[in-house]
Amino acid sequence: MPDLDKQLAFLREIDRLKTVVRLSPLIDRSRRENSAEHSWHLAMYALVLAEHAAGTIDILRVIKMLLIHDIVEIDAGDVPFHVPATHAGQAERERQAAERLFGLLLEAQAAEFRDLWHEFEAAESGDAKFAKALDRFQPMLHNAATDGGTWVECAVTLEQVKSRCQPPIERGAPALWEAAADMAEAHFRKP
Amino acid sequence: MPDLDKQLAFLREIDRLKTVVRLSPLIDRSRRENSAEHSWHLAMYALVLAEHAAGTIDILRVIKMLLIHDIVEIDAGDVPFHVPATHAGQAERERQAAERLFGLLLEAQAAEFRDLWHEFEAAESGDAKFAKALDRFQPMLHNAATDGGTWVECAVTLEQVKSRCQPPIERGAPALWEAAADMAEAHFRKP
Repeated sequence: MPDLDKQLAFLREIDRLKTVVRLSPLIDRSRRENSAEHSWHLAMYALVLAEHAAGTIDILRVIKMLLIHDIVEIDAGDVPFHVPATHAGQAERERQAAERLFGLLLEAQAAEFRDLWHEFEAAESGDAKFAKALDRFQPMLHNAATDGGTWVECAVTLEQVKSRCQPPIERGAPALWEAAADMAEAHFRKP
Repeated sequence: MPDLDKQLAFLREIDRLKTVVRLSPLIDRSRRENSAEHSWHLAMYALVLAEHAAGTIDILRVIKMLLIHDIVEIDAGDVPFHVPATHAGQAERERQAAERLFGLLLEAQAAEFRDLWHEFEAAESGDAKFAKALDRFQPMLHNAATDGGTWVECAVTLEQVKSRCQPPIERGAPALWEAAADMAEAHFRKP
């Protein structure tokens, strides 16, 4: 069954997402988080927090986006959110990664995943806005739970956290931005 | 917002699933798989392989089951499939874990997750049969891709693999059992 062979080759290939390490620590600080377990956690965030979406969402589409949103990192690597690197070429590397990785599947499935990934990246549809809000919210919760996490590691200020995180989180899930701002303020005001 | 506080406490608590280590190796053999990234991978299996389900399925319910199916391991630990341990008390430990962990949420969400987890464990509904088939199929794919993986580590025979894996996989996804049997036979027939 050649269709199944392609599907299984894709499922074997994306095992590599488990070896893409993010800057964020686990909450127990035993090690850094990888992008596969991060994607699982975000899908759980979507399930649990769906009622806080800014508008009507299709939860299945949101979860699909979150499950696949980091797969491009297998080829393109993870770019830490608070590292002010020159990201020159990163968008193009990710686009090529989406072509190669989703292209391991038959065209109908490849196109669905490619389209969902582009939709997530654009963050314009209601589903993508909520998914993107969760992807920005989860690291804030982890930083607050680990005495600052990547805020401390990257030496960012409260103002930088707010200017970078408020727009995407507030747009997709206003109540979550309120909670995130409270957590960030509590951390940065500690003596 | 006390509801949100409970939801965030649950999402912080389940971070610990990333530290529950399974016996299965990653395909690159760099380390063993943890239960959080395993759950992500299974949700991707469901998305990609949905057409191979034995009957009509609700893919959102299948994905929900797979995302939450191992959360009880945070309290009860993982019991490797091919380790012939006396599993005395394990079912009760898992039931109590489901009570405590899902019970961190408000009752409506707690009940949904608890019910989905019991449905997965029972493996009687069409959705649960497919989810369970994937949970048994994925380690076979990984073992075949790693020169035997846990088959070698646990010193199991082809007959044991077949008798343990054929019923759950064939019941939920017959085409996947065919593929899995071919992979297992190819491994065990190698000189």
